[in-house]
Amino acid sequence: MKVNAVKLADLYMYLNADIKKIEEELEQSVLSEHPALKSASLDLLQAGGKRIRPVFVLLGAKYGNYDIDRVKHIAVSLELIHMASLVHDDVIDNAELRRGSQTIKAKWDNRVAMYTGDYIFAKAVEKTTFFNDGNINTILSHAMIQMCLGEIEQIRDQYNWEQNMRIYLRRIRRKTALLIAVSCQLGAISAGASKQEQIRLYQYGYNVGMSYQIIDDILDFTGTEKQLGKPAGGDLRQGNVTLPALYAMDRDPSLKRDIVQLIEDEASSSQDITPIIEAIKQSGGIEYSKELSRKYLNKAYSALDSLPDIKATKSLREVATYIGGRKH
Amino acid sequence: MKVNAVKLADLYMYLNADIKKIEEELEQSVLSEHPALKSASLDLLQAGGKRIRPVFVLLGAKYGNYDIDRVKHIAVSLELIHMASLVHDDVIDNAELRRGSQTIKAKWDNRVAMYTGDYIFAKAVEKTTFFNDGNINTILSHAMIQMCLGEIEQIRDQYNWEQNMRIYLRRIRRKTALLIAVSCQLGAISAGASKQEQIRLYQYGYNVGMSYQIIDDILDFTGTEKQLGKPAGGDLRQGNVTLPALYAMDRDPSLKRDIVQLIEDEASSSQDITPIIEAIKQSGGIEYSKELSRKYLNKAYSALDSLPDIKATKSLREVATYIGGRKH
Repeated sequence: MKVNAVKLADLYMYLNADIKKIEEELEQSVLSEHPALKSASLDLLQAGGKRIRPVFVLLGAKYGNYDIDRVKHIAVSLELIHMASLVHDDVIDNAELRRGSQTIKAKWDNRVAMYTGDYIFAKAVEKTTFFNDGNINTILSHAMIQMCLGEIEQIRDQYNWEQNMRIYLRRIRRKTALLIAVSCQLGAISAGASKQEQIRLYQYGYNVGMSYQIIDDILDFTGTEKQLGKPAGGDLRQGNVTLPALYAMDRDPSLKRDIVQLIEDEASSSQDITPIIEAIKQSGGIEYSKELSRKYLNKAYSALDSLPDIKATKSLREVATYIGGRKH
Repeated sequence: MKVNAVKLADLYMYLNADIKKIEEELEQSVLSEHPALKSASLDLLQAGGKRIRPVFVLLGAKYGNYDIDRVKHIAVSLELIHMASLVHDDVIDNAELRRGSQTIKAKWDNRVAMYTGDYIFAKAVEKTTFFNDGNINTILSHAMIQMCLGEIEQIRDQYNWEQNMRIYLRRIRRKTALLIAVSCQLGAISAGASKQEQIRLYQYGYNVGMSYQIIDDILDFTGTEKQLGKPAGGDLRQGNVTLPALYAMDRDPSLKRDIVQLIEDEASSSQDITPIIEAIKQSGGIEYSKELSRKYLNKAYSALDSLPDIKATKSLREVATYIGGRKH
């Protein structure tokens, strides 16, 4: 698995010129129209990000008549939806952070950030009108709706110790997998790929997305502080109950009691939860999660098997392998 | 002008069954799909509101083949956009209100409200995919973008004492007039009205919207506390510089200095700004604003003159008259 990083860089290299084009479009979409948007969204753009959704869109379009000047609208649209959700995610945190010294100026900034998020959403919708294709708009708005429901579920299910695996899987499907599935699918649709290819690409994206999120949730337990940029167990500390913890609590009622007690303790944020993390690791929750992640990954590989043997198929396989092997 | 209220009630009466249908659709859109949305959006629906945008949509559709089961999608979509912006407007205020005692629970509620707003936006977009008409989606997303820019401008221009009338007019166009213009226009488009009728209805809506907002800004100075539900001069106290104040400050530099000094004073919220309000009234700023509002209203009437003499035209004229004469 050590070669993964190199392979992914290779993949990006052959898409490099097109990704650069998308970066430029993103910048134009959120910067040029209005000076007030500059401060609110420049940081976000400069942070860059992996642009993983645009990559999936571009690869999906390789199964039809690939035209960067068409498909870029879809790629930009999906990345804008992702960016808008990041902007909105920060608004509440910022309002909270500045709680002690919330000046009128800071309040304005939060409100501007709020409407900047809305603006970016609207821009995402506008981008797809290029195609004048009701199907594309339906798929996109449906994905937006599901993403919002996923975020709402994540908040509502915080500190909900009675949730089960079905609830967890529905949440990550909505929150993560669907937008990746739709990225692959819309790339294919915009390039006129066959219906069969559209379906396969959707299935690939969906399963890769599920696998990706499960691994993300595993790494939050197994990663080092250096890899994660924060102490391990952050999800659990914030009351986000993910698969490894769900498995462990289901297996060991007394561990569940310990977890609930420690995390619900008001002072938990300053408390050492290392013993709990260790107990979850000991429970087999990590192995169980890895196994489930692998199952999704295998389904993603299967979806690729019935696609034509073109360079994009090789690339999608490499992305899946990279995701399966990533350590942070 | 005393008869206006009665006439508006008459107008609503003949659209009553259709507005009821739209209310039901609105409820289904934001309530039924997800239990978590219930608490976040029920209040909003029960508050009711004037549903002024749906009324414009329905009247616009009367110029084509009126079919409530088609046009309702447009009416619901535009009202959802309006509702989403109300939800988001409250988020920051709530975060602020709860500042002293911001519990984790309250923070969640704000975050849920945030994503509920996003969800309602996405639902608004989804509604229009019914028509599979790129033109409708383009018009709608453009209106959303402009509305966001208007809100951002309003925030950025708070306490900006150097703004001019051009900036004020651009702001109210984006914030208010465009969504009403588009309501009339999209109603017409969805019913297959002629291009000429679409344009006239857009012009009518735009001018009525401008007039409406200017009168709103006048009433904030001239209304009684009972009519406004809050003391007069609230806009100015919050640093929102509207037309009557702009006019007064432009005419009288020493009054401008007084206004800036008093409002910028940290303690202004508890201070008596009655003398300033009186000075603005004395300056002729109210008359000037009324005159401008009347000009827009006359343009709205003119747009109606070249529309066929059907019941909807009479109704639109009544709405304009009602807006022109309203006292609160």
